[in-house]
Amino acid sequence: MGRWLVNGEAAGVVDIEDRGFAYGDGLFETIAWRQATPRLLDRHLARLTAGCRRLALPVPDAGMIRTQLASLGAGTRNGTAKLIVTRGPGPRGYRPPSLPAPTLAIGFFPAAPGEPRPGAVAVTCTVPASENAVLAGIKKLGRLDNVMAQAQVMAVGADEGIMFGGDGRLVGGTSSNLFLVRAGQLFTPAIGSAGVAGIMRDLVLEIAAGLGIPSVVGRLGTPDLAGAEEMFVTSSLVGIRPVHRLDGRVVGTGPLTARLMQALAEAGVREPGP
Amino acid sequence: MGRWLVNGEAAGVVDIEDRGFAYGDGLFETIAWRQATPRLLDRHLARLTAGCRRLALPVPDAGMIRTQLASLGAGTRNGTAKLIVTRGPGPRGYRPPSLPAPTLAIGFFPAAPGEPRPGAVAVTCTVPASENAVLAGIKKLGRLDNVMAQAQVMAVGADEGIMFGGDGRLVGGTSSNLFLVRAGQLFTPAIGSAGVAGIMRDLVLEIAAGLGIPSVVGRLGTPDLAGAEEMFVTSSLVGIRPVHRLDGRVVGTGPLTARLMQALAEAGVREPGP
Repeated sequence: MGRWLVNGEAAGVVDIEDRGFAYGDGLFETIAWRQATPRLLDRHLARLTAGCRRLALPVPDAGMIRTQLASLGAGTRNGTAKLIVTRGPGPRGYRPPSLPAPTLAIGFFPAAPGEPRPGAVAVTCTVPASENAVLAGIKKLGRLDNVMAQAQVMAVGADEGIMFGGDGRLVGGTSSNLFLVRAGQLFTPAIGSAGVAGIMRDLVLEIAAGLGIPSVVGRLGTPDLAGAEEMFVTSSLVGIRPVHRLDGRVVGTGPLTARLMQALAEAGVREPGP
Repeated sequence: MGRWLVNGEAAGVVDIEDRGFAYGDGLFETIAWRQATPRLLDRHLARLTAGCRRLALPVPDAGMIRTQLASLGAGTRNGTAKLIVTRGPGPRGYRPPSLPAPTLAIGFFPAAPGEPRPGAVAVTCTVPASENAVLAGIKKLGRLDNVMAQAQVMAVGADEGIMFGGDGRLVGGTSSNLFLVRAGQLFTPAIGSAGVAGIMRDLVLEIAAGLGIPSVVGRLGTPDLAGAEEMFVTSSLVGIRPVHRLDGRVVGTGPLTARLMQALAEAGVREPGP
């Protein structure tokens, strides 16, 4: 169990009528805590702010979040922090309260220094990603699609699942964004109707642009998976993780992935954490 | 605030690491408590069981639910009961625990006897219903789409919103299922990729079949809305509620809706509750 502050107080529980529990009415961030600091915190706070605005949720004070994070993580070198913001407790029914008293829950999970991780073994999932053009990109609480897809991944002993929309369009990994490499170009699915606008996805796209690597953010499908020469997933916690195997097929680790991992490490994102 | 039993104990809180809060990993039922009993409880328990099976959640004991409901509602004539089943507390990450300790939370909300309600004023919502063919029909916890659509409904002072899928297909009401009447036939959207398999929806379809009223469960869109001669929404709490106005257009209350309401009342579903 993590150490939690709920609205600034040490707590292990949340109101049973919190709308986060009742209706998934909120969002979250998962932050890598490395070298005793929250990595890429400004980006996480920017996404949290954007998500709150889209959901008409009051934006929690960034200074308060920084202070609470620092207090939870004090003395810990490596770990994971989780921020949850919900519309707070409210009466029964979907109708959001006109004057919400939002819940800000911050959890901290210390971790031993990581071991070097091998490439991921990935499988395609038959559980589709939930699609909603108005909510796409938001790191919202309701993730039953990811949970059920991850159960499929576990059932076959793989590390990560690849998810599609109902129309066969690629969405991303069960707990990551997906990148493909072909002919020197980088490809990643657009976040138009499903998927999360990943912090690490953005950073990788920026780094690629800085290196002059052309990238395509668009509609991808099974043929793109099949034709990929390199493949990797990204997340705030793992940075870039190469995919070494997809549905049993060996995927080559290649030069473009290695180049991006190197550039990411130079930008301060090195896994396992130092 | 309601009266709650969480895993059989009076409580107003839930574990902050409950997967219902973290990921919407669970489902719920909302049950009308009328004449001091839970209305259509067998149907609610059957849907809960089916939902748990689809989510690979242990099915809570029906006898225990009945006992706890009876204890919460003792001495109360009218109200609403809410059952929530989640995969319980678990470590961070979508991956479901292999041996979950599910949470069963039962809430009870006493209510004054209802007043006769006028027909609903409905508006079409631009927030789409989230689509997922594997999760469709389940009354899952994550309802951010309904919440955001209901906010649109409130913003214009209406009672109920009509929601569509991303492709323009009709899904249902923000907190109800939708029925249209045209040329003596009943129409309701199929629950193939979005929407909840409503208890009252099923009952109305059965009653219609018993009365020899032909019904079509299928793909419907804006032209069907525009061409409807009668329109009503259904839910466990309101039974059948006619729609009197849609986006400003007056919708006639007609004979078929009245006939179904009468038959539903004879089957024991009469609103406002006696």
